[in-house]
Amino acid sequence: MAAATRFVPCGIVTLTTDFGTSDGYVGAMKGVLLREAPGLGVFDLAHGVEPQNVSHAAAVLRTACPWYPAGTVHLGVVDPGVGTERAGLVVLAGGHAFVGPDNGLFGLVALALGGMTDARRIDPTGALAAIVSATPSATFHGRDVFAPTAAVLASGHVAPADVGPVHQPVQPPTPPVRAEPGGLAGCVTYVDRFGNAVTNVPAIDLPGFPTTAYTAIAATETVDLVRTYADVAEGTLCAVVGSEGFVEIAIRGGNATARLRLKTGSPVRVLEKGARR
Amino acid sequence: MAAATRFVPCGIVTLTTDFGTSDGYVGAMKGVLLREAPGLGVFDLAHGVEPQNVSHAAAVLRTACPWYPAGTVHLGVVDPGVGTERAGLVVLAGGHAFVGPDNGLFGLVALALGGMTDARRIDPTGALAAIVSATPSATFHGRDVFAPTAAVLASGHVAPADVGPVHQPVQPPTPPVRAEPGGLAGCVTYVDRFGNAVTNVPAIDLPGFPTTAYTAIAATETVDLVRTYADVAEGTLCAVVGSEGFVEIAIRGGNATARLRLKTGSPVRVLEKGARR
Amino acid sequence: MAAATRFVPCGIVTLTTDFGTSDGYVGAMKGVLLREAPGLGVFDLAHGVEPQNVSHAAAVLRTACPWYPAGTVHLGVVDPGVGTERAGLVVLAGGHAFVGPDNGLFGLVALALGGMTDARRIDPTGALAAIVSATPSATFHGRDVFAPTAAVLASGHVAPADVGPVHQPVQPPTPPVRAEPGGLAGCVTYVDRFGNAVTNVPAIDLPGFPTTAYTAIAATETVDLVRTYADVAEGTLCAVVGSEGFVEIAIRGGNATARLRLKTGSPVRVLEKGARR
Repeated sequence: MAAATRFVPCGIVTLTTDFGTSDGYVGAMKGVLLREAPGLGVFDLAHGVEPQNVSHAAAVLRTACPWYPAGTVHLGVVDPGVGTERAGLVVLAGGHAFVGPDNGLFGLVALALGGMTDARRIDPTGALAAIVSATPSATFHGRDVFAPTAAVLASGHVAPADVGPVHQPVQPPTPPVRAEPGGLAGCVTYVDRFGNAVTNVPAIDLPGFPTTAYTAIAATETVDLVRTYADVAEGTLCAVVGSEGFVEIAIRGGNATARLRLKTGSPVRVLEKGARR
Repeated sequence: MAAATRFVPCGIVTLTTDFGTSDGYVGAMKGVLLREAPGLGVFDLAHGVEPQNVSHAAAVLRTACPWYPAGTVHLGVVDPGVGTERAGLVVLAGGHAFVGPDNGLFGLVALALGGMTDARRIDPTGALAAIVSATPSATFHGRDVFAPTAAVLASGHVAPADVGPVHQPVQPPTPPVRAEPGGLAGCVTYVDRFGNAVTNVPAIDLPGFPTTAYTAIAATETVDLVRTYADVAEGTLCAVVGSEGFVEIAIRGGNATARLRLKTGSPVRVLEKGARR
Repeated sequence: MAAATRFVPCGIVTLTTDFGTSDGYVGAMKGVLLREAPGLGVFDLAHGVEPQNVSHAAAVLRTACPWYPAGTVHLGVVDPGVGTERAGLVVLAGGHAFVGPDNGLFGLVALALGGMTDARRIDPTGALAAIVSATPSATFHGRDVFAPTAAVLASGHVAPADVGPVHQPVQPPTPPVRAEPGGLAGCVTYVDRFGNAVTNVPAIDLPGFPTTAYTAIAATETVDLVRTYADVAEGTLCAVVGSEGFVEIAIRGGNATARLRLKTGSPVRVLEKGARR
């Protein structure tokens, strides 16, 4: 684990789920937060994560959470294993706290924040006994376990070290990036609302970038890596370095993922122009 | 009506609508709330309620609202009768206040909170005269009537008893649950984002539950009532008791409603294993 | 420009984008706002604006923003030109501030608030140098330019006149309304979630309205302009004056846009009954 940064709560809680905006689940979680700590600032990150897609949620958390002030508590609930023996988790990284199921959700964002400094398994029999039921509903730990835990962390009523014993989180399910002659091979991490296919290939690891010219190979297409969408004509495929620093496949004014039939996991290679394919 | 619990505003307002997230209607309502009372805490419950589906909204409110602190004002605007003579309503239950059209929206949640303790018809000529127009737009009472009423209730500037005369709300349009030999017969109340079909059958009313084994019958399928999704194999149909205590039909890792072609109102029976069908 | 109303920040920021609710972009912007100014009130207007549809976003802003207290900062990010030389903009109108790309987004709402009183080009080398990067990401100025600018305006740390030089914003791409014998000819501005086609024809400019009887002509249909949906039978086409004061085409309990195949830009004429067509 990385060198410890203390967690000093700042009264802000964020929410990331796959609960959508048509049911009462998100509202119930906010209610629990506010009942425990009425003065909290509660902020929606995204509730439209693809149902039960942990990788998608992990990417959303990595994109959004590092921009918050240290001391923020980030609640992440995409939980296909609810009702099983999977642990409930509190993770600290960069002075932020993350609360949710132990399924790899927080691996990427913790890395982006310099690495985990602490990880605990939520124990409903200790300091949390008064607010987390030892027999929660079998289908909604977001409301019964994670929201109350987040509330007392954010309000400072319970310290992270008191939520339960030290725990080794499961690894995030992210496939690695592989070096190839002239570049890197990775895959699509997620598809955003604009149809851009965001990969796990970090531009900063491409040797000579941005001086060296690169192309990206996705499905049957080879496209130039340009600075921004506007560098190509309307309707033209390209690759750009997205706002997170990862290569993404895009069409100016169109939907690249639909055109190339890409999806999470589709392979993408980013190679110097002229490198052997 | 139930024994009265006083309403003492806590400065929190929640919003539940069928306005979606692509138009300016929700934003306009928030603006009205903040102009009347800039310090309010304003929290989105769900804006993706199926357009004009009062039953769906009633289920969302029942799922979410009881978890908020007493003193919260819940604004619910699903209003197919806007512009007609239907009343505008303020309902009190369990120390919470509900504001919206009189179309049955608040019946379920009031019951969950122990029953209505007061119900008033919004009168724009009395204490609300300064903030609710006597001639609101014919299509958007959420902005012109309900949001300003909610704001002054939440800020404490107007007491619930002063918004207008006592009023008998219309009954919610929920079909009843019927006893059958060996169990209960009800129907699908709503379908959630995961494709789970949530019924109006309360597990607590099944005799012998959870000791007695039950099955649920929906469309042409008879499925076991299990503790949680993870008790069956990936892709298998089951019934579980949802986080509200009602039986729901689900597929582990899939969409039960799509598979069985269920919809709001589809009949579901929950019977002891071996009971005559 | 209109007579100046001073901008006195009230600590409220609103967000309107086409970023949707499934990615981390909205969450990142909120993080930047809160890191700069942790006490801000941050309110979502709408994130489901049709991707890159500036006209749609302009209509949302006009619908929602004028209801907020003066001193609110409205962040609008629908930005097909990100990465090009288009300016970043701060506009003042009616004591509100608007921050976003210079592509016509704020023209309608500024008009509704009495006209622009100031417009500035965001300059990252002046008072904003400490918080706006001179080399922002090429794809996400919402996070790197507009959110930090909004934060310091809302917190009062930077005055609007200090964000950069006076700038003439580009004109909004709204087609004009034309007088015809007996009425007005305009077009569909946007389609709302209910399938209502909202036009740019202001009822207040129809001579004799509401005393004179009018009809609206859209696609192949001629329908009566009535007071509210409930004035016609379920399933019947009609025209009503929407909550913004503009004529819209609707079906009671149905989706008018789908029935008539209307879309943004479709012509709509509103004429006295019996006027020559």
